[in-house]
Amino acid sequence: MNRQITLAARPVGYPKETDFKLIETPIPTPEDGQVLLKTIYLSVDPYMRGRMNQVRSYAANVEFNEVMVGGVVAQVVESRHSEFQVGDIVNAHIGWQEYGVSGGDGLRKIDPSIAPISTGVGILGMPGLTAYFGLLEVGKLQKGESVFVSGAAGAVGSVVGQIAKIKGCRVVGSAGTDEKIAYILDELGFDAAFNYKNVTDYYAKLSELFPDGIDVYFDNVGGSITDAVFPNLRLKGRVVICGQISQYNLENPETGPRFLWHMITKRARIEGFLASDFSDRYADALIQMAEWVQQGKLKYRETIAEGGIENAPSAFISMLKGGNIGKQLVKIADAD
Amino acid sequence: MNRQITLAARPVGYPKETDFKLIETPIPTPEDGQVLLKTIYLSVDPYMRGRMNQVRSYAANVEFNEVMVGGVVAQVVESRHSEFQVGDIVNAHIGWQEYGVSGGDGLRKIDPSIAPISTGVGILGMPGLTAYFGLLEVGKLQKGESVFVSGAAGAVGSVVGQIAKIKGCRVVGSAGTDEKIAYILDELGFDAAFNYKNVTDYYAKLSELFPDGIDVYFDNVGGSITDAVFPNLRLKGRVVICGQISQYNLENPETGPRFLWHMITKRARIEGFLASDFSDRYADALIQMAEWVQQGKLKYRETIAEGGIENAPSAFISMLKGGNIGKQLVKIADAD
Repeated sequence: MNRQITLAARPVGYPKETDFKLIETPIPTPEDGQVLLKTIYLSVDPYMRGRMNQVRSYAANVEFNEVMVGGVVAQVVESRHSEFQVGDIVNAHIGWQEYGVSGGDGLRKIDPSIAPISTGVGILGMPGLTAYFGLLEVGKLQKGESVFVSGAAGAVGSVVGQIAKIKGCRVVGSAGTDEKIAYILDELGFDAAFNYKNVTDYYAKLSELFPDGIDVYFDNVGGSITDAVFPNLRLKGRVVICGQISQYNLENPETGPRFLWHMITKRARIEGFLASDFSDRYADALIQMAEWVQQGKLKYRETIAEGGIENAPSAFISMLKGGNIGKQLVKIADAD
Repeated sequence: MNRQITLAARPVGYPKETDFKLIETPIPTPEDGQVLLKTIYLSVDPYMRGRMNQVRSYAANVEFNEVMVGGVVAQVVESRHSEFQVGDIVNAHIGWQEYGVSGGDGLRKIDPSIAPISTGVGILGMPGLTAYFGLLEVGKLQKGESVFVSGAAGAVGSVVGQIAKIKGCRVVGSAGTDEKIAYILDELGFDAAFNYKNVTDYYAKLSELFPDGIDVYFDNVGGSITDAVFPNLRLKGRVVICGQISQYNLENPETGPRFLWHMITKRARIEGFLASDFSDRYADALIQMAEWVQQGKLKYRETIAEGGIENAPSAFISMLKGGNIGKQLVKIADAD
């Protein structure tokens, strides 16, 4: 049987395990031109929280009793598609389930000789591409600039900081545990970092860490930390909006200080994006990212929940609460 | 004697006339390489409110007992500068005073044959250039797009809407009196408009007026109207931050709903600017703007306070409260 996780209820605040339901359905049969995929790793990501809402996110939301959306690393176990062979490891978007079929659209082969296949939904997948295009294309980072990244120990933030270092920039990160701070300082080479749970005045903290101001802010979290960035921006500063995880699970939407006048005084820019805006350039970016990984310039860590598909909801909820360092995955099955 | 208006006190909330002081000083004597200028029209603009604060605006603030900053249309009455003759009409930045000297930097000759010289601080001066570069260069307006402009009957907003029409776009404006609404609809050719004082639900109003969403929002006001734009943006929408006049005179800063997550869902951009960011392109832009004025494609109105320099504070305060249609000027003297 194929075990799947569906949406059972729209969450109020943080999702609960009862907002999800485990169901069993027959393993699908691939038609001509399709492959049958077996999920090896399921990726759980902040954006999925938005898909659980009634209101429209940047893509269609998940309906009740539909399988939760998501990217996976999977193995081809049956192929009726000329470009894929049994045994191929691929990145696919079949959602939270043990098996799925695909007609090939959006399937990307993963080369197991470059790095562990789990990186196909991590540093060499959507989170890594998000960091790459967000920082370099949206943020237009220039050598020698000063970068601040929130959510700096996460799947995206940890890559943002390291790319900034590769590009000859000074980088400061914020995260929510001392262990995460030690990780980004000692292992990833950030120039400075702070545990936002131990700081009350973010404005003062950023002023101290950026006496000449912030050129690029890569925002994964939103909320009070982001508020404190605007008065600390340099002239022509750029704010890259990647995520707003502090806001996704609020039962009552927050208000915050108005800050748009800073955009005039600083001639600054705020811009939101999705990695998929740059999908026609994924191939070249992944070549560069893989090279940096193989050279040891890009390090990564994964937090892997074991125990199969039934543990996906708890791993997802834990990730939303900051329980992960680096990429949060769920191990679903072994590859053959 | 030279009568000048200086800063007497830093305003709390809206400026009062007692925040200004009229003083008399000797008329300055131009040195070699300088001209003596007689002010004909003084421009009073929203940005000046920021200069009256202690906190830094985008330029140095005005100190106590300093002459208020500002642009003027002036006449050269004495010249020891090879490029300027007595009688020349120029745009200058000598502030709120009847006479001033200049070494030529930032002086721009005004051709009285093109349009009335008052336009040198209006549609053919800083406000017109602000509209031009903000809409076309920052907003990257494309033919056929939908534009919303707040403060639409003001010196900048009224030009923004007309340029949008010239560029083949649909344009909607907001303003604060029915007279202003009639002006932008009947005289300037906006496609739709609303008096924001008669609307309670800006989100619903904008949804009704932009069923397919807003491509470019030109923001002169900030506050609640601006809040309502973000959920109404189209994919790849642009928000051009020109002014935030609703916020400049608040005794206690407002808070507002957090909206940055819309930037991700819409892949949108917010950008602040000053016309002076484009000063190397003023000359070409003014040729284009003058052509549109002469063709009758760009109309303008001026609200001119009579009575000399002593009426500058009341004219400025009136403008901050929305008393003007089009450009607010103060008539200081007649040209010879």
